[in-house]
Amino acid sequence: MSLERIFNAESVVVVGASRDEKKRGFQAIRTLLEGKYEGDIYPVNPKEDRILGLKCHKSIADIGRPVDLALITTPARTLPSLLAECGQSKIAGAVIIAGGFGELGEEGKKLERQMVEVAREHGVRLVGPNTSGMISVHSNMNLVGLSGIPKGDLALISQSGNMALHLITEAALKSQKGFSYYVGVGNEADIKFHEYLEFFTEDPKTRAIVIYVEGLRDGRKFLQQAYKTTRKKPIVLLKSGRSVTGAQSAGSHTGALAGISEVAHTAFRRAGIINILNSDELFPVAEALSSLPPMKNNSVAILADGGGHATIAADVLNDHGVDIPAVGEATQERLRKLLGPNASLRNPIDVAGATDADPSVFAEAARILLRDESIGGLLMVGLFGGYGIRFAERLKFKEEDAAHQLGKLVLKTQKPIVVHSLYNHARPHSLDLLRYYGIPVYDSLEIACKCSATLSQYGRHRSDWQRKSTFVFNWGHDAKDEGNAMIAQSRKEGRGLLLEHEAKRLLGLHGVKVPDERLAKTAKEAASFAKELGGPVAMKIVSPQIVHKSDARGVRLGVEGQDAVTQAFDDIVAAALGYEPKADIRGVLVSPMAEPGVEVIIGTKIDAQFGPVIMFGIGGIFVEVLKDVVFRVLPITPKAAEMMLDEIRSSKILSGFRGKPPIDRQALIELLLTVSGIIEAYPQIQELDLNPIIVRHDGLSIVDARLLLTK
Amino acid sequence: MSLERIFNAESVVVVGASRDEKKRGFQAIRTLLEGKYEGDIYPVNPKEDRILGLKCHKSIADIGRPVDLALITTPARTLPSLLAECGQSKIAGAVIIAGGFGELGEEGKKLERQMVEVAREHGVRLVGPNTSGMISVHSNMNLVGLSGIPKGDLALISQSGNMALHLITEAALKSQKGFSYYVGVGNEADIKFHEYLEFFTEDPKTRAIVIYVEGLRDGRKFLQQAYKTTRKKPIVLLKSGRSVTGAQSAGSHTGALAGISEVAHTAFRRAGIINILNSDELFPVAEALSSLPPMKNNSVAILADGGGHATIAADVLNDHGVDIPAVGEATQERLRKLLGPNASLRNPIDVAGATDADPSVFAEAARILLRDESIGGLLMVGLFGGYGIRFAERLKFKEEDAAHQLGKLVLKTQKPIVVHSLYNHARPHSLDLLRYYGIPVYDSLEIACKCSATLSQYGRHRSDWQRKSTFVFNWGHDAKDEGNAMIAQSRKEGRGLLLEHEAKRLLGLHGVKVPDERLAKTAKEAASFAKELGGPVAMKIVSPQIVHKSDARGVRLGVEGQDAVTQAFDDIVAAALGYEPKADIRGVLVSPMAEPGVEVIIGTKIDAQFGPVIMFGIGGIFVEVLKDVVFRVLPITPKAAEMMLDEIRSSKILSGFRGKPPIDRQALIELLLTVSGIIEAYPQIQELDLNPIIVRHDGLSIVDARLLLTK
Repeated sequence: MSLERIFNAESVVVVGASRDEKKRGFQAIRTLLEGKYEGDIYPVNPKEDRILGLKCHKSIADIGRPVDLALITTPARTLPSLLAECGQSKIAGAVIIAGGFGELGEEGKKLERQMVEVAREHGVRLVGPNTSGMISVHSNMNLVGLSGIPKGDLALISQSGNMALHLITEAALKSQKGFSYYVGVGNEADIKFHEYLEFFTEDPKTRAIVIYVEGLRDGRKFLQQAYKTTRKKPIVLLKSGRSVTGAQSAGSHTGALAGISEVAHTAFRRAGIINILNSDELFPVAEALSSLPPMKNNSVAILADGGGHATIAADVLNDHGVDIPAVGEATQERLRKLLGPNASLRNPIDVAGATDADPSVFAEAARILLRDESIGGLLMVGLFGGYGIRFAERLKFKEEDAAHQLGKLVLKTQKPIVVHSLYNHARPHSLDLLRYYGIPVYDSLEIACKCSATLSQYGRHRSDWQRKSTFVFNWGHDAKDEGNAMIAQSRKEGRGLLLEHEAKRLLGLHGVKVPDERLAKTAKEAASFAKELGGPVAMKIVSPQIVHKSDARGVRLGVEGQDAVTQAFDDIVAAALGYEPKADIRGVLVSPMAEPGVEVIIGTKIDAQFGPVIMFGIGGIFVEVLKDVVFRVLPITPKAAEMMLDEIRSSKILSGFRGKPPIDRQALIELLLTVSGIIEAYPQIQELDLNPIIVRHDGLSIVDARLLLTK
Repeated sequence: MSLERIFNAESVVVVGASRDEKKRGFQAIRTLLEGKYEGDIYPVNPKEDRILGLKCHKSIADIGRPVDLALITTPARTLPSLLAECGQSKIAGAVIIAGGFGELGEEGKKLERQMVEVAREHGVRLVGPNTSGMISVHSNMNLVGLSGIPKGDLALISQSGNMALHLITEAALKSQKGFSYYVGVGNEADIKFHEYLEFFTEDPKTRAIVIYVEGLRDGRKFLQQAYKTTRKKPIVLLKSGRSVTGAQSAGSHTGALAGISEVAHTAFRRAGIINILNSDELFPVAEALSSLPPMKNNSVAILADGGGHATIAADVLNDHGVDIPAVGEATQERLRKLLGPNASLRNPIDVAGATDADPSVFAEAARILLRDESIGGLLMVGLFGGYGIRFAERLKFKEEDAAHQLGKLVLKTQKPIVVHSLYNHARPHSLDLLRYYGIPVYDSLEIACKCSATLSQYGRHRSDWQRKSTFVFNWGHDAKDEGNAMIAQSRKEGRGLLLEHEAKRLLGLHGVKVPDERLAKTAKEAASFAKELGGPVAMKIVSPQIVHKSDARGVRLGVEGQDAVTQAFDDIVAAALGYEPKADIRGVLVSPMAEPGVEVIIGTKIDAQFGPVIMFGIGGIFVEVLKDVVFRVLPITPKAAEMMLDEIRSSKILSGFRGKPPIDRQALIELLLTVSGIIEAYPQIQELDLNPIIVRHDGLSIVDARLLLTK
């Protein structure tokens, strides 16, 4: 169901309306009246007749006409029955301010579930509970009690009322931007992040979406929606709670779980979200992305009026992965004519005094640079805006002229210009003019660079979009009967896992080449298998009770010769029984020794926020000591599998090292994709670990496999 | 010679004085007059009689009385003779504005050397050339032409005039801080960074030193001075030019080389310098460190009035390595009484509305927190300063009361308070009051956290100071005659390196246990040595022409048995001659095979900026693929050697891994210290590489050694 009647409600009932100035039920009505809300307001309180000049109704039913939205300010326990009343009056949604639900533990969770049940039954959607409220800024439907909210095209979704205040204050003090909507998601008991996102994606008043989140309740649906949203509009997101202390603090005030940062960050990036780590950058980046065209390539020209700023800007852009290519000879020639012999012309361009007498020269230099096809965008850093302050007052008119020219240049070329000015703080008119044209101006060089970089990042996402994952995961797709049967048998035996040879058999069912190995029940069988295989063999205990085979001294490698194999069989079984006397010994797995190569690991698990995820990394010492692994939310595309190989720190090891030939990347990519398919096929799998896998230049061997089932 | 007469000059001659308003020689005099410089001003220009009402002298000699300082604005080529004149008039120093020296290549370098020679001969010290000038702010001796410089206690040393303008503007717009001195170092032809640093260390008007640097000309002397300075005063430094493009840009405007970032950063930290990577943080950190007492421990309490801010602050402090411990029960109890049941009391402390009616409650909460002995400092984040703006105007008086209390609390407890306020931009009086007491207020949460973290960092440096390196390096200390003889012999033979066995012999001279190995001249000798050693041996070609022995197939490992050794000798020699027909074959080194262990590497080199540096890392694949190495400027202390072992990413490998016992850390620490001593002993060594070294739980073996001599 669309959230249209909630966000663009034409009438609001305030349940818990009050004459007490300190109460939310009073403040809410005052804010709506003062803000000149365009719709109807119906206070409800059985004990009052009139509040702030409005007739007060005894109950919701009493209003006697259809209402779109209810703001409920009464305590938690009143909610279930109130929501039933809302439903009977065909109210589309309710904003629930009260805390005392899921964030307070089991009792609260129970009440929350009960409330949601009633709401669903009556077709009422819920914002919150435990929310600061919501605001439809253009229609002045302010259900928060926060005044002075500038109107504009940013939709704000926040898990903290405090951060909403932060961003709104920042917008008002430092920009010409404003908001279309604000919603505090609270506990997300009913409406979740992705549903808000969906609404704002289609909303014509919204040009970009800003999100502050501490933990997601349904990360996968969020990713799926974000992936669709970012085709049309940028999403700028800050996720906090990454530190332990931070996570505790996040937990204490919203009751949400902070997610695994690494998985979240990669997934956000793939969904095209601009993922912000530094809170200072959240609003500025949203400002830039909602005001400027994204860049069509990754090459920025830096235009400076001083060497220090040019050097720092180049450092920071470079850290963000932006190219700062030397501009072409023709462009340099044009710049030379304009700026004279002292200027640095390659990139960064340092005017070296050529703008001192006339800062409108900046506009001409910008025109020359943006005419250069290799340049995707411009970053202007330094004193612009301050020439009229620092040097001579009359120069401010030149700066204003330049601002008009720069603004029109962006419109014409559809290439973004971002400006850093040392004098931003003094609010010269020229800089307000730039903002009028949608050119953001920052007093921080670092932030200006970050904004330039995200314009490039978002531009690349828009052009790359088709190749990204949709995050759509089809449980049960393409399962094999034999696979399901093995899993069922394992469950029947009360086992939480498949045995090693079963897990490998499952892989085999899906086309993975697994070692030619046999389960020997007796020493004699083992010897006979080893003879068939020829050469040295690996021998491993197989028992449902023994998960960590090495700990039980249940593994022998490189065993060769009939006697040695017989002896090893007996030793392994004895050691295993010594380790776990009640172990049900199914036999000893006899496998050919894998040829040497590079050890890698592939693992999957079901993440609490994002569902199935896959991990890839170099095995052995690398995974244990350096944790050199990368994650992806499943399913993965061939492109994603390839990128995983490149993204580990020690990826060089895969591409031929110390004179060794490169490994068989294709085999590894195929294995990653097959594992992705297997996890999709069997919702019964909790974790699948292939470790180690030995990859060579001509194929790979899966040496060990571990498969845990869901509970 | 002290720079006293330069920085506190009582008279200034302006050479190149002019009546042309556009010329520096006019502007400089105007600035001195307008700024009411306390000393005497003597314009010099043979063609003028009076400039701006001052008598103009035909020459320096013409002045006829002693002058302290000369500002020279004439072109590069005029300098040598002008400096001779300065010397004859006993002028202590000259500020040289002109470019056209070392930054322009060989011709310019020559002129620069010539100029410095004349200056030294006549006892004149030089600021610059290619500098924006210098300012003694308190005496209004402004030789830059930059007006509106706030007076205060920060000394600013910068390699970019642009960045100086940046910092001065930031101070004026955003703080109550100001400057004691500014100097633009320019090309550092004579006076270098460390000499300025020395002067400001002793200067009573300076409380902290701010440095912007792109490349250092004498990094070691800088470190030595910084190490002394930071005992007394903080140094806050930003080094840019770390990216390639950035480095080009830095090079183009100052002609200095950008240094190896990794070496520089570690060395700066050891010298107690606060090394800033984000330019937004440079001034704020200087403000905090020059106004507040440093922290006595690493534990910060966060005091917030909203969950979002608390969560983000905890994240950021945690990223900076600051502890945010739960406060004690007694403290929590006191806070509970003050803030009521809804507040989060552990840390971060979230007042949860308890300050809404009276923001002076913040001061009381701060008092309770700073009384807690486990807490070293306080970070207040959120809305303070804005209660009078957002909620009710009368609350601003409560905020002002709180500001007075907080200010006096810092004075009394000597624990720092740093404040973030969303309303800083609006400049409420309460926040100016905080600044009056030296409590800095930032609108950036991230920067407030950084400042808190650096107060802790600087505090730790002050208490740890004795253990740090002095960076004093005694070339030639403790050299052995035999070592010098080997090096001399090598030079005599025209070799740029010692042979492997010679390098090991040198190590042995300094007490390092080296393998019992012999140089065999014939196959027979080799066989006999191998027999004596017993067991398998390693055999390696020894020839001055063959540096990379493996490339020449000049290495055999695990050779066992008389016939095999004889055969290997012949093969190695044949292969070496095949690889390099003119090779002078000195023989084949026969060594016992090293027992297995962890491969590490120790290397040294002479860095262009910092002199001798040492590198340590895990060897093999780690050093080649992951570059998992750390650097230190030599000499190192035992503590530094120990820290190097811990600082590599894969340090876990050294502390016992996969059930192996920990390696012999002591042996490795001793080896690092001995190598440090050897480099100190022989200034003739350019590079020493011990690679690999195999470390076991009971000692280590140096398998290969490579020693290059200086040219």
